[in-house]
Amino acid sequence: MKIALFPGSFDPFTIGHESVVRRALSLFDKIIIAIGYNTNKMGYFPLEQRVQWIKNVFEGDEKIEVEVFESLTVDLCVKKKAQFILRGLRTSADFEYERAIGQMNRSMHAEIETVFFLTLPEHTHVTSTIVRDIIRYGGDASIFLPDKMKISQ
Amino acid sequence: MKIALFPGSFDPFTIGHESVVRRALSLFDKIIIAIGYNTNKMGYFPLEQRVQWIKNVFEGDEKIEVEVFESLTVDLCVKKKAQFILRGLRTSADFEYERAIGQMNRSMHAEIETVFFLTLPEHTHVTSTIVRDIIRYGGDASIFLPDKMKISQ
Amino acid sequence: MKIALFPGSFDPFTIGHESVVRRALSLFDKIIIAIGYNTNKMGYFPLEQRVQWIKNVFEGDEKIEVEVFESLTVDLCVKKKAQFILRGLRTSADFEYERAIGQMNRSMHAEIETVFFLTLPEHTHVTSTIVRDIIRYGGDASIFLPDKMKISQ
Amino acid sequence: MKIALFPGSFDPFTIGHESVVRRALSLFDKIIIAIGYNTNKMGYFPLEQRVQWIKNVFEGDEKIEVEVFESLTVDLCVKKKAQFILRGLRTSADFEYERAIGQMNRSMHAEIETVFFLTLPEHTHVTSTIVRDIIRYGGDASIFLPDKMKISQ
Amino acid sequence: MKIALFPGSFDPFTIGHESVVRRALSLFDKIIIAIGYNTNKMGYFPLEQRVQWIKNVFEGDEKIEVEVFESLTVDLCVKKKAQFILRGLRTSADFEYERAIGQMNRSMHAEIETVFFLTLPEHTHVTSTIVRDIIRYGGDASIFLPDKMKISQ
Amino acid sequence: MKIALFPGSFDPFTIGHESVVRRALSLFDKIIIAIGYNTNKMGYFPLEQRVQWIKNVFEGDEKIEVEVFESLTVDLCVKKKAQFILRGLRTSADFEYERAIGQMNRSMHAEIETVFFLTLPEHTHVTSTIVRDIIRYGGDASIFLPDKMKISQ
Repeated sequence: MKIALFPGSFDPFTIGHESVVRRALSLFDKIIIAIGYNTNKMGYFPLEQRVQWIKNVFEGDEKIEVEVFESLTVDLCVKKKAQFILRGLRTSADFEYERAIGQMNRSMHAEIETVFFLTLPEHTHVTSTIVRDIIRYGGDASIFLPDKMKISQ
Repeated sequence: MKIALFPGSFDPFTIGHESVVRRALSLFDKIIIAIGYNTNKMGYFPLEQRVQWIKNVFEGDEKIEVEVFESLTVDLCVKKKAQFILRGLRTSADFEYERAIGQMNRSMHAEIETVFFLTLPEHTHVTSTIVRDIIRYGGDASIFLPDKMKISQ
Repeated sequence: MKIALFPGSFDPFTIGHESVVRRALSLFDKIIIAIGYNTNKMGYFPLEQRVQWIKNVFEGDEKIEVEVFESLTVDLCVKKKAQFILRGLRTSADFEYERAIGQMNRSMHAEIETVFFLTLPEHTHVTSTIVRDIIRYGGDASIFLPDKMKISQ
Repeated sequence: MKIALFPGSFDPFTIGHESVVRRALSLFDKIIIAIGYNTNKMGYFPLEQRVQWIKNVFEGDEKIEVEVFESLTVDLCVKKKAQFILRGLRTSADFEYERAIGQMNRSMHAEIETVFFLTLPEHTHVTSTIVRDIIRYGGDASIFLPDKMKISQ
Repeated sequence: MKIALFPGSFDPFTIGHESVVRRALSLFDKIIIAIGYNTNKMGYFPLEQRVQWIKNVFEGDEKIEVEVFESLTVDLCVKKKAQFILRGLRTSADFEYERAIGQMNRSMHAEIETVFFLTLPEHTHVTSTIVRDIIRYGGDASIFLPDKMKISQ
Repeated sequence: MKIALFPGSFDPFTIGHESVVRRALSLFDKIIIAIGYNTNKMGYFPLEQRVQWIKNVFEGDEKIEVEVFESLTVDLCVKKKAQFILRGLRTSADFEYERAIGQMNRSMHAEIETVFFLTLPEHTHVTSTIVRDIIRYGGDASIFLPDKMKISQ
C-alpha cells in the first residue's frame, strides 16, 4: 500500500493544493493531508477551521485523510507508515527550499522519499501568504479557493 | 492619461527607488508613490518621515504624487484611476516574488498591468533592508539615499 | 509619441508574444515588432513566413509595425526613434538573461529603457523553442499559436 | 498498473540517473528508460552503446525496460501506456526547464503527469555534459558512472 | 598577514560551517569566526554556548579565533584588520543574498573583499534553521553537527 | 606559495575579468590566467590575439602568468602546482553552473579548491558573449574592455 503524506500549514488550503492532491491520487493508495502547527505561533485561520475546510473539499473521498501534527514531518511519516512525502512545486525559489527540506528528511530517514508534482500554470502565483493578505485587506479571494471552501467576510 | 502606482514600504526610500521613478517619468503622465503601511506592524522610520522624504526628493515635480495606504494595491489603483503598477526589478529572487504578486493582482483586476523597469547595475545591491541595518548599527548609509534625504544620526 | 521596439526571433511567434504586445498597446503609441535574423544562422521557419504570420495576427491594427533587422537592437531603436524596448518576462532564468541584455543596451544608449510585462500564468511555459520541437516531431502546436497563425503540417 | 517513462539522452547514463530510477522503483510497477535521439544530431556515445550500458546496469530487474525513441515524449507515453513521466531534479536551473517541458506536455495530454524525485546531495553536480567533457579530455569519470558501466579509454 | 572574518549567527554552528573554515585555512593566515548577535532578538542557543561550541571544535588550532559582535561586519573587519570576509555558498538563493551583502560591504569599504567557498555537495541542504527545527521537535541532529559539538537533549 | 588558476575562454577578456584578477592579487602569490581552447571549435578571436591582449593588460605585473590549455582544468592545476581555481560570480545562473563545475573538480582532486570573487555591480551585465555580439554587429564595445585592449574595427 502506497501512502503519501502531504504536509503544510494550509493557512488557508488553496486551489493549488487541491489540484496537486487530486492529480496525485492516481499514484497513491492513500494521501494524508497533514496540517503542521506550532503552539507558540498562531496561524491566521484557526486550526479547527483549516481541518474542516479540507474535510469538506475531499468529502466522500476515502483515499484522503486529514491529520494535524506538531512534530518532525518524518516522525509523522513513520507513525502513519507513509513511505512518501508529496509536495507541489511552483517556482525555483520554492524548489531550493523544498530540496533542502527533502534532503534533510532523507538524511534522517533514508527510506522516505519526497515526490514532487508541478502546480498547474494557472496556479503558479497562488500562495497561502498572498491569499491571506487579500482576505486580511477585505479583498475577494474566492477564485483562489476550492469550491467548498468559500470564506465568509 | 497614463497613471502608474509605485507601491512599497520605502523604509527608507533609496537611490534605487528614485532612479526607477525618474526613468519611468518619460512613460507615464503621473506616478503615484504609494507608501503601504500596516497599523499592527510599525516600520523602522515613522510614516510621516517617509512621506516627507519622498516629497523632498521630488519637490517641484508636478507629475509625482505621494500617498499612504493600508489596503490592497489594486484597490488603491482603482480609487486613484491608475491603470499601471510600476515596479523595479533587481534580482531573480525579486522577480519570482514580483511575478506572484503581479499575477495575483491581475487575477483580481485584469485591466491593471504591472510594468517593470530594471534597477541600474550600480543599484542592484541596494535594498531598504540592508540600508536600514547599516543605519541601525551606526554606519553611514548616505551614499544609498537620494541627495535631499540625508538622515541625521 | 511613445514608441516601443519588441525584438525577438519569433521562430515562431506564440500566444505568449501576442499577449504581451496586445496588453502593452495601452501604454505605447506604436509598437514595432522587430524580427532579428542572422544571415549565417538560418532559423526554422523562413523569415518571410515569420513576417507574414505577425502581419496576419495584427492585421488592421495601425499601432503595430513589423520590421526585420540584422544589427544591434539599440541601433534599430535609434533608427526607428523608439525610446523603449518591450520584453515579456516568463521565468527567473529569463530574467537574468534579460537583465544582462537590458543593462548592456543601457550602457550603450542611456536614453533607451527596457520595459517588461509579465507573461500570463497560462503562457509561462510556452517558448518558441519547445513549440518548434513539437512541430518538428509532428505534434499539434496550434494551442500555443495565435488564431490567425495555424501551421500546416 | 502504474507505468513511468524516464526520458533522456543518457549520453552517458550516470550514477545520478541510476539513483533516481532505483528509488522510484518503489512507486511504479514499471519504469521505461527511454533514450531520445535525433537522426540529425549525433550524440557522443553511439546509441547502441547507451542502450547496452543501461541494460547492463539493470540486468535481471524485470520492472525496467529500455527503449529508444525519436518523437515527442508524450507520444511515446501514449504508445507505451505510461501515465507518468519520471524526472530527477538537481538544481533550480533544472527546475525552470523541467517545469516548462512538464507543463507543455500536460497541455498536450492532460492525463500524463510528470513526477519528480530529488537527486541525492552527493549527485547534484553530476551531469552527463560534464562527465562527457571529463572523458573527452582523458580524465577518469568512473566515480560518476554506475558500477556495471565502466568506460574503456 | 592575510586575515579573514567568517561572520554568522551560528545558531548552531554546523558541519557545513566547519568544512568551509577548515578548507579555507590553507588560504588565510588567520580566520576569525565572528558570531553576530542582536540584543533585541534572542537566538535559539545562548551566545556563550555558541562561542564555547566553536572553541571546542577548533581547539588547539592557533589560526582560529572566535569573536562576538553587535555592529556592522565591515566595522569589525577594520577593527580586527581583516582584509577579507569569508562566506560559504550553498544555493543560488544564498548567492543572491550574499551578493547584495558583499557588494554593500564593498560600497562602504572598497578594500575589503568577500571570498566565497562552495559547501560540499553532501552539506548543501544543511542549514542552521533546519537543524534548529529538528532539535526543537526532538529529532536527532547530531549528523549535521561537528564531532565535538553534540547537543544534549 | 599560493597559486591560483583563472580559467576561461576569454573570447574576449573583459573589464569584468580584469577586475576579478586585480582584486584577487592581494590573496594569491601568483595568478595563472589560463585560456582554454578546443581544436574542434574555433573561437571568435584568434587564440594568439587573446593571449596577447591579456599580456598587454597585465604587462609588468610579475604575479600574472598567461597559459593556453586543451585539457581538464584540474590537470592543468596539478601541472602548474595551483592549489586554487579562481572564478568570478556575476549572477545566480552563473552560480549554479560554477557550483557544478567546482564540485566536479573537487570530486576528482579533493585538494584543489575553487575560490569565488564577486564581480563589481557595474560589471554584472558584462559577458564575453554579449560583448562579442556587439562587436560582430559593428557596435562600440570599448567601454567593456580593459584600457590596453581596444579592438580595431
